[in-house]
Amino acid sequence: MSNRIVTFGEILLRLSPPSHLRITQATSFDSYYGCAEANVAASLSKFGLPVKFVTAVPDNELGESSLSMLRSFGVNPIVSVQGKRLGIYYFEQGASERPGKVVYDREDSSFSTLKMGMIDWRTIFKKANWFHWSGITPSLSQDLANLCKEALEVATEMGLTISADLNYRPKLWQYGKKANEIMPDLVQHCDLLLGGVDESESVLGVPRNELDTDDIVFANWMKVYPRLKNIVSTHRMDANASSNGISASLWNGKKLLHSRKYNISHIIDRIGAGDAFMAGIIYGLITWPEDHQMALEYAVAATCLKHSISGDINLATVNEIKALVSGAGGGRVSR
Amino acid sequence: MSNRIVTFGEILLRLSPPSHLRITQATSFDSYYGCAEANVAASLSKFGLPVKFVTAVPDNELGESSLSMLRSFGVNPIVSVQGKRLGIYYFEQGASERPGKVVYDREDSSFSTLKMGMIDWRTIFKKANWFHWSGITPSLSQDLANLCKEALEVATEMGLTISADLNYRPKLWQYGKKANEIMPDLVQHCDLLLGGVDESESVLGVPRNELDTDDIVFANWMKVYPRLKNIVSTHRMDANASSNGISASLWNGKKLLHSRKYNISHIIDRIGAGDAFMAGIIYGLITWPEDHQMALEYAVAATCLKHSISGDINLATVNEIKALVSGAGGGRVSR
Amino acid sequence: MSNRIVTFGEILLRLSPPSHLRITQATSFDSYYGCAEANVAASLSKFGLPVKFVTAVPDNELGESSLSMLRSFGVNPIVSVQGKRLGIYYFEQGASERPGKVVYDREDSSFSTLKMGMIDWRTIFKKANWFHWSGITPSLSQDLANLCKEALEVATEMGLTISADLNYRPKLWQYGKKANEIMPDLVQHCDLLLGGVDESESVLGVPRNELDTDDIVFANWMKVYPRLKNIVSTHRMDANASSNGISASLWNGKKLLHSRKYNISHIIDRIGAGDAFMAGIIYGLITWPEDHQMALEYAVAATCLKHSISGDINLATVNEIKALVSGAGGGRVSR
Amino acid sequence: MSNRIVTFGEILLRLSPPSHLRITQATSFDSYYGCAEANVAASLSKFGLPVKFVTAVPDNELGESSLSMLRSFGVNPIVSVQGKRLGIYYFEQGASERPGKVVYDREDSSFSTLKMGMIDWRTIFKKANWFHWSGITPSLSQDLANLCKEALEVATEMGLTISADLNYRPKLWQYGKKANEIMPDLVQHCDLLLGGVDESESVLGVPRNELDTDDIVFANWMKVYPRLKNIVSTHRMDANASSNGISASLWNGKKLLHSRKYNISHIIDRIGAGDAFMAGIIYGLITWPEDHQMALEYAVAATCLKHSISGDINLATVNEIKALVSGAGGGRVSR
Amino acid sequence: MSNRIVTFGEILLRLSPPSHLRITQATSFDSYYGCAEANVAASLSKFGLPVKFVTAVPDNELGESSLSMLRSFGVNPIVSVQGKRLGIYYFEQGASERPGKVVYDREDSSFSTLKMGMIDWRTIFKKANWFHWSGITPSLSQDLANLCKEALEVATEMGLTISADLNYRPKLWQYGKKANEIMPDLVQHCDLLLGGVDESESVLGVPRNELDTDDIVFANWMKVYPRLKNIVSTHRMDANASSNGISASLWNGKKLLHSRKYNISHIIDRIGAGDAFMAGIIYGLITWPEDHQMALEYAVAATCLKHSISGDINLATVNEIKALVSGAGGGRVSR
Amino acid sequence: MSNRIVTFGEILLRLSPPSHLRITQATSFDSYYGCAEANVAASLSKFGLPVKFVTAVPDNELGESSLSMLRSFGVNPIVSVQGKRLGIYYFEQGASERPGKVVYDREDSSFSTLKMGMIDWRTIFKKANWFHWSGITPSLSQDLANLCKEALEVATEMGLTISADLNYRPKLWQYGKKANEIMPDLVQHCDLLLGGVDESESVLGVPRNELDTDDIVFANWMKVYPRLKNIVSTHRMDANASSNGISASLWNGKKLLHSRKYNISHIIDRIGAGDAFMAGIIYGLITWPEDHQMALEYAVAATCLKHSISGDINLATVNEIKALVSGAGGGRVSR
Repeated sequence: MSNRIVTFGEILLRLSPPSHLRITQATSFDSYYGCAEANVAASLSKFGLPVKFVTAVPDNELGESSLSMLRSFGVNPIVSVQGKRLGIYYFEQGASERPGKVVYDREDSSFSTLKMGMIDWRTIFKKANWFHWSGITPSLSQDLANLCKEALEVATEMGLTISADLNYRPKLWQYGKKANEIMPDLVQHCDLLLGGVDESESVLGVPRNELDTDDIVFANWMKVYPRLKNIVSTHRMDANASSNGISASLWNGKKLLHSRKYNISHIIDRIGAGDAFMAGIIYGLITWPEDHQMALEYAVAATCLKHSISGDINLATVNEIKALVSGAGGGRVSR
Repeated sequence: MSNRIVTFGEILLRLSPPSHLRITQATSFDSYYGCAEANVAASLSKFGLPVKFVTAVPDNELGESSLSMLRSFGVNPIVSVQGKRLGIYYFEQGASERPGKVVYDREDSSFSTLKMGMIDWRTIFKKANWFHWSGITPSLSQDLANLCKEALEVATEMGLTISADLNYRPKLWQYGKKANEIMPDLVQHCDLLLGGVDESESVLGVPRNELDTDDIVFANWMKVYPRLKNIVSTHRMDANASSNGISASLWNGKKLLHSRKYNISHIIDRIGAGDAFMAGIIYGLITWPEDHQMALEYAVAATCLKHSISGDINLATVNEIKALVSGAGGGRVSR
Repeated sequence: MSNRIVTFGEILLRLSPPSHLRITQATSFDSYYGCAEANVAASLSKFGLPVKFVTAVPDNELGESSLSMLRSFGVNPIVSVQGKRLGIYYFEQGASERPGKVVYDREDSSFSTLKMGMIDWRTIFKKANWFHWSGITPSLSQDLANLCKEALEVATEMGLTISADLNYRPKLWQYGKKANEIMPDLVQHCDLLLGGVDESESVLGVPRNELDTDDIVFANWMKVYPRLKNIVSTHRMDANASSNGISASLWNGKKLLHSRKYNISHIIDRIGAGDAFMAGIIYGLITWPEDHQMALEYAVAATCLKHSISGDINLATVNEIKALVSGAGGGRVSR
Repeated sequence: MSNRIVTFGEILLRLSPPSHLRITQATSFDSYYGCAEANVAASLSKFGLPVKFVTAVPDNELGESSLSMLRSFGVNPIVSVQGKRLGIYYFEQGASERPGKVVYDREDSSFSTLKMGMIDWRTIFKKANWFHWSGITPSLSQDLANLCKEALEVATEMGLTISADLNYRPKLWQYGKKANEIMPDLVQHCDLLLGGVDESESVLGVPRNELDTDDIVFANWMKVYPRLKNIVSTHRMDANASSNGISASLWNGKKLLHSRKYNISHIIDRIGAGDAFMAGIIYGLITWPEDHQMALEYAVAATCLKHSISGDINLATVNEIKALVSGAGGGRVSR
Repeated sequence: MSNRIVTFGEILLRLSPPSHLRITQATSFDSYYGCAEANVAASLSKFGLPVKFVTAVPDNELGESSLSMLRSFGVNPIVSVQGKRLGIYYFEQGASERPGKVVYDREDSSFSTLKMGMIDWRTIFKKANWFHWSGITPSLSQDLANLCKEALEVATEMGLTISADLNYRPKLWQYGKKANEIMPDLVQHCDLLLGGVDESESVLGVPRNELDTDDIVFANWMKVYPRLKNIVSTHRMDANASSNGISASLWNGKKLLHSRKYNISHIIDRIGAGDAFMAGIIYGLITWPEDHQMALEYAVAATCLKHSISGDINLATVNEIKALVSGAGGGRVSR
Repeated sequence: MSNRIVTFGEILLRLSPPSHLRITQATSFDSYYGCAEANVAASLSKFGLPVKFVTAVPDNELGESSLSMLRSFGVNPIVSVQGKRLGIYYFEQGASERPGKVVYDREDSSFSTLKMGMIDWRTIFKKANWFHWSGITPSLSQDLANLCKEALEVATEMGLTISADLNYRPKLWQYGKKANEIMPDLVQHCDLLLGGVDESESVLGVPRNELDTDDIVFANWMKVYPRLKNIVSTHRMDANASSNGISASLWNGKKLLHSRKYNISHIIDRIGAGDAFMAGIIYGLITWPEDHQMALEYAVAATCLKHSISGDINLATVNEIKALVSGAGGGRVSR
C-alpha cells in the first residue's frame, strides 16, 4: 500500500494493578507502554500500513522497552534519546460505579525536553503522505506546542494529509496557556479532526449555543477551519465503569452520518478506546475514500473491540473489525 | 475529630481461589484478613476516624499478619495474644447463577477462647464515645455472649453510643442457644441497629405479621428496645452472583427514609458489603447528625462501591463516596 | 448405582491466555486437559457415576498429565499409549463483541493414529450399560469413523444404551467425506441425540423445510433413525461473548418439552457448555427415567452453571445443580 | 505387579507463600495436599505399584480436593467422611541461613476423630501384601495410637509386610504420653524401619551410648524388635536451607551399607524428602529383594530428586531415579 | 521499653520484575515501598521499639500506600503531604555474574521539596532518645542537607543519641557539592556511624593511607569526629549476584571487634542489607550496651537473614536473629 | 555499521512450567518464541547489528507472535507464511540433580514444509555480508538439507562470510540420513564453526583418536574443510542443573586460545547458552578481527550472562558483556 503515516507524540509507561485491585492494595503492577499517538501508530501498523512514530525517550531500560513494544507491531520509531525519565501513568481499572482512575507522573519526561529544531521533519516526512498528532502534545509545554506547529507547517508544505485528535484533558494544560489560545493555530492545518461538541469553545475557540445540533456545530468549525474535510465524534451512553453503549458520527461538510450503536456489556480496558477509533477512521478514509459510512462503521467497530482488549493498544485486526461490521459479534466462538 | 470508636470482634484469614476458580480447582488461594467488625473498623479508620479494634489472635505469623493489616489502615489493635489458631474461612467467588460459597473453619480459634474478665473495657473505652459490635460474636459461644454483655454494660455506664449489626447466620449458632434467647439482652443497649425485617422474630424476638410494612416492624422494634434511635436496612434486588441492585432505608422513629438505588452490573467482591454499609452509616450519623437522608445516602454509596473492591474491606474514601452521592459514577475515568 | 458408562474420544491440551489476554499478547498460557467426550466423562464421574474413558495418548508428560486429570475426577482411563503427540487447541476468551477464538493444532495426534482392531471393545463394555460418543471423532479420519462404527456395533450387540452429541464443526471434516456421508450410519445406533435443527441436512441427511417447527424436524429424525428415543437441543439467545440466555428442549417422540430459560450475565468460560448439557441429560434420564421435564431441567441447569466455571469441565455437583433447578441461583452467598 | 500396598495416615492442606516470601508478607498461598503417609502412597503409585490410602476427611471442598489429588496419582483412597475440618500446615520456604518454618493448624481435624472399630481393616487388607504407617499418626491422640495398633495386629495376622517411618516430631506428642510409651508396642510389628540413631531412646526406648557406631545401635534395635529385617537412615550434611549433602545407610542385620552421597546445591522444596526416601526403599526392596545396595541407592536417589520438586510429593519416575543411580545427573538437558 | 527512635528520610516506590526477569522483558513489576532510613525504621519497629519516621509524600495513592506499609509495621509516620510525586527506583535482580541493577527515577519527588523550617523537630523529638539519618538525604539537595543539619542541631540540643549510615552513592551527589563538603558538618553530631574505610576521604574528608589497617582508619575518624563512640562496617566476600560471604566489624575506640562470617549461598534480595545491619546494631547497642560483641553479632546475623527476604525491609524477628547468633541456621526446618 | 547478517532457521514456541514446576504439575506454561538461529539473530540485533531472519510460519496467532518477538529486537523477519502449525517444544527447568527436560512437538511445522526454490536467496543476500545457519535445519528433512545447500551455494557465490553451529541432536535426525552423510557437504562452505571434538566423526566424518588433543582435532577439521578460518568450542564443568563452570576455546589454524573460566552458581535458564556464544563470537570476530582472544572472551562472557536470563534469547548488551570481560561481575549492584 502506498500510504505512509507519521505520528508524533509521547510514549508512557502505564502501571496498572492486576485483577481490578486498587492502587493502594497492589503488590504488583502490570506494565504496558503506550499513549494517545503511540496507540494510533501501533493500531495502524497492525492494520498493515507503514508507520513511523516520532518521540523521545531516555537512555535506559524503560526507554528501550517502549521502543521494543513499538517495533513488535512493526512501527518504525524515530527517536531522540535524551532527558532523564520515561513518563508514567498509573491506571486503576474501575468497576460498576467505581470510576477508573489515572494518576499521572509524567512531568520532566524525556519527551517534555523536546524543542523546535531538534527533529528533522523534512527527512521524516519524505515518502510519507499522512501526519497524525493529538492535543496531548501541545498541552505539555510551550516548547512542545511550538514543535507541533513546526511539524504541521513542514507537513503542510510537503503536502501531507493531517489528522488530529483534540484529546482535551484540562489537567494537563499547566504552563499558563489555555487550550484555545494554542490549538486553533494548530488545528487550521488539519484535514481530519476527532472531537466533541463540548470542546467547541474550550479548545477550538468556536462559541457554541447549547441548543445547536451537532451538524450545526461542526459546520461552524468548518467555517473557522476551512481545511477540515471530515469531523468525527464518538458517543458513550448508559455508561458505568463496566459497561456502556458506544456509537460515532461523521460530518463531511454535507451530511452528519451516524454509525451503528454497540452495547459493550463487559469492558476489559477502556483506555485507548479513542485512539482505536482514530486509527480506525484514518484506515477507513484511506481504504474507502468514497464511502464515509463504511469508514465510520469500521472506526466504531474498532473502538468497540478495543474495549475488550487489555492495554492501551487495539489488537483487533482488519478482518476482525470487518467481521464485526458485517454483524459477526461475540455470540459465537470463532473456530 | 473528637469521635473515637471502639469495635470488638474476631478477625479471620480468608482464603479465596483467584480468577473465579472453584476451591476444588485452586492451586493457590488469595489471602485476606478481615471479618464483620474488623471490616467496619478498617473502613472507619480509612474515613479518618480514630478506631480501636479489640480482639484475640494466636502467637504466630497468622495472628501477626492480621494485626499488620489492621495497623496498615491506622486501626489501633487492642489484642489478647492467646489460643492456638486464627480462624479461617474459604470463600469461593460465584458468577451468574453459581452462588458464592463460604466454607467456615473457624472453630477453636483464639478469639473463641475469650471470656468475661479477660478484657479491660474501662481502659479501652476511656476517651472513646462509640462502641460497635455485631451478632457474629455472641453466636460463637456462651462465653463470648457473656463477654459481649459485659462490654455493653461498661459502655453504657461510660456513656458511649452503641451500634450493632445483627448479622444473623443461623449456621453459627451451635452452642445450644437460639439467637433470640441471647440477642435481646444485648440489643437493648443499642442506639443504632442494622438489620432486616426477616430477623424480627428469629433474632430480636419481636413477632412480625407478614403483611406489616417495614416502618411498622421497625416501630415495633423501638417499642421493645426503647434505646434505639435509628434502624437501618439494606435491600438487594434482581440479584445473581455477578450483578444486583442495592438500596437502603432508615427508620428514625418518625419516618422511613429511602435511599437512591444503584445497579451494580459487575460485582468484584460482595463480601463485606454489609460492613461497608455499617461503617458508612456510623460515619454518616456522626458527620451529618441532623441529616439522616445524607447519612443514609453516604452509607448506601459506600456499600455500592464496596462491591467493586476485592477483599473484605471497603477501600473507598470519603471523597469517592461523596462523589458517588453527588452523581459521579463509573462512567468516566477520573484523571 | 448400577449404571456404568463408557465414553470414547480424544483428549486435548487446551492453552488459554490468562485474564482475557489475546494470544498475541500472552506471555503465559493457562493449561487444561479436555475435549468433548472427556468433558462428558469427567462431569458424569463428578455426578457419582462410574465412567470409563477410552482414548489414546503419547508416551510423554503431556499424555500422562491428561490421564492424571481424568483420574482426579475418578474416571477410569482405558488408554492406548501410541503415536507422537497430544493434540492441542489454543483458546482465546472473548469479551463483549469480540468472539472467543479457537486455533486448532490437533492433527497427527496420538488419537488420530487409532484404527479398527486396536481396541478391545468387548472387554471394555463388559458390565457397562451406556456408551457415549460424539461427532468429533468420525470427523477426524476415515479410520476413526470406522473405529466408531466398530464400537457402536459391539455396543449395540451387547445391549448398551447409546448416546451421541452431533457436535458438528465443518472445519474438522477434512478427509474427503462430508458429515452426512458418515454420520447416518453411526447415528442409527443411537437412543439419545444432542443436536440442533440446523444439522438436519448437513449431518443427518434429513431434508428440512425452513418453516418446519422443531417438533416436526425431530419427528422426521425419528422416522429416519427409529432407534432414537429422545432428541435434545440447546438454544442460546441475545448472545455476546460475555453474556447470553440459555434454554433447552427435549423431543421424546410425543412432545417437545421446553426448559426454563437462564440469563447468564457474566460468562466465565463457555467451552464445554454443550458437554455439560450432555452429561446432564444422561444423568437426568438415568435418574428420572419417567420424568423427562426434570431430566431436561437438570441438564439445562448443568450447562448454565458450566458457564461460570473455568476450564472445559463442569465442576458443578448434583446438589448444586438441583439447587439451581429449585430456584436457588447466585443471588445469595451459600454459607 | 502382584504387590499391593496399603498406607494409612492423615492428609493435610499445605499453604505456602510463593517465591520465598514469608508468611507475614504473603498475599496468596500456594496450596498442596499431602503429608507423610500420603506422600509415600502417591510416590509408590507413581512408581507403578497399586496403592490404597486409608484416611478420613470432612464433607467439604477441601476434603474432596485432597482425594482428587490422590486419585490423580492413581492412588485408591479408602475414606471415612467424618469430622469438620481438613488439617492445615503453613510452610514458609527458607533460604540460606533462614530456616524453613512450619506452622501447624491440624488439631480437631477429621482424621483426629478416627477411633478403633471405624475402619474395616480386614476388607482393606484383602489382596494386599504390604502395610505402611508412620509415627505421626500415633502422636496425634490415644485413639489414633489404638487404631494404629488395631491395624498392625490385623495386618500381622493377615501376613502383610509392615514398614514404618518413625517421623519423630516432639511438638506433636501432646496428649500426655511420650513417644517411647506408645511406639514400642507398634514398632514390634515392623519388618522395615526408617529412623535415626537419635531416636533410639526417645522413640524406641532403646538406650544408646553416644559413642556407639550406627551399626551397634541398629543391632540393638533388632534385638529389641526381632521382627525387623532392615533399618534405614538418611543423613544430611553441610546443610542450610538452600543446599545440603544427602546420603543414606541400611542395616540388614549383618552389614551397614552406605549409599552414594549427593550434593544438592539448590533446594526447591525439602518437605517430603523423607517420604520420598521411604517410598524409594519400599520400592527398592520389593524390586531388588536380594540387592540391598541397589535398593538403598534407589531410595537415596529418590530423595535427592525430591529436593528439586515443589510440593510434598516426589514426582520422579522410576526411569528418572534409575538414571540418576546410573550417574546421569542434572548436568545435561534431557532432550 | 523506654527507647524511642526517630528516623528521617525519603520513602520510594520500588518496582522489580518478578522471577529474575530483566526490566526489558517484564510485563509486570512487583512493588515495594522503602528506602534506606525507612527500612531501618520498619526493622526497628519489628524488633519492638517505638519508631517515628519523618518524611514527605504526595497527596495521591502512592503516597498513601507508602504510609500504609510503614503503619503495618507499627511505625508512626510523621508526614508532610506536599509535592507531586513519590520517587521511584526500578530494581532488576541479578544472578550469578549478572549484577543487580538500579535505575533511579527519584528526582522532583515530594521529599526533595522539603526545606528548613518545614518540620517541627522539637515536637517530634519530644520523648525520643535516638535519632537516625543517612547520607542519602543530604546527597539529594542543598535544602535537604540544610534540613538535615537543622535536625541534627535540635537533636543534639535535646540530648538524643545520633546514628548515621554514610550510604555513599556518588551518582546521587548532583547539586554541585561533593560529599566531603557537606557530610563532615553533619557527622560531627553522630555517636554511631556505619561506614567503610573507602569512604574516609570521599565522604568524611579524612585522608587515608592505603596501607592503614581498619583500626587505624577508624581511630583517625574518632580524632576528627570526637563525638563518635562506635564505628561499624560490613564486609562482603567472594561475591556474585547470587551468593556471597558477609561479616562485620566494630571499632569502639579501643578495640576492633570482628563478627562471625556467614556464607550466603542463595541470595533472595540483597537490597536493604545495609539497613538491616544498621537496625541490628542500633537494637544491639540499646539492648546490650556493655556487650559490643553481642551487639555486632546481632547486627551481622540480621543482615545475613535480610539476604533471604524479598523486598527492602528485614522481616526477621528478634528471636530469629538470636537463634542464628546461637548457631541455629537454615539447615533444619523449624516446626 | 556496514555488517549485515542473514540467519536462517526455524522459530518455535517454547512452553515452560513456571517456578521450576514439572510439566505434570503445571497449570500454566510460560511462553517464549525462539530456537537456535532465531536466538542468534535476536542477540546480534541487540548488539546493534542489522539482522534478517529467514523462516516460515503458519497464518495464525502463533506465527504472528513469533514474528512480533523478532521485530521487538529489531530483527527483520523474511517470512514465508505457509503450512499449518508453529512447532513447539516443552521445556522443564531442572534443578540440582534433576536434569532439565525437552519434549519436542515440532514435526509437521510450517518450517518443515519449506523446499528448494521457495526462498529468493539472491534478493535476501543483497547488501548482506554474513550468513549463519545451524545443524538443526538439515536434521529435520532432506528438503531442508537441500534448501540449506542451496542457500550456502548462493551465499558463497555472493561472497558472504558463513558461520555454522553444528548443534548435533541425534534425536532430530529421523529421515534416514546420518548427520555425517549430510553435514560435510554443507560445512565445506563455512568460515567459522562452533562444535566440539565429540562431533568430529558423527557430524563431520573426521575420524578422531581419543587421545588427540583438541588442537590436533581442529587442525584435522581444517584439513578436510579448508575454508574454515576459526573453530570455536564451549566447555561445561562440574555441572548440575543449577550450576556449572563454563569456558571456551578458539582454534584459528595456528593456536588454541583459551578463555577465562566462569563459575555460574545459580542458573536461571541454560537454554540458548550456545546460541548466545555463537552470537558473541560472530560479534567478536566482526568487531575485533585481529584480536581473537578478545573475541573469544566476549563470546564466553556472553554465554555466561545468558545463563542468568530467562527465555531462549540473550538479553545482555554489549556494554554489560564488556563490563564482565573487564572483571565487573555480579558482586555489586549497578546503580
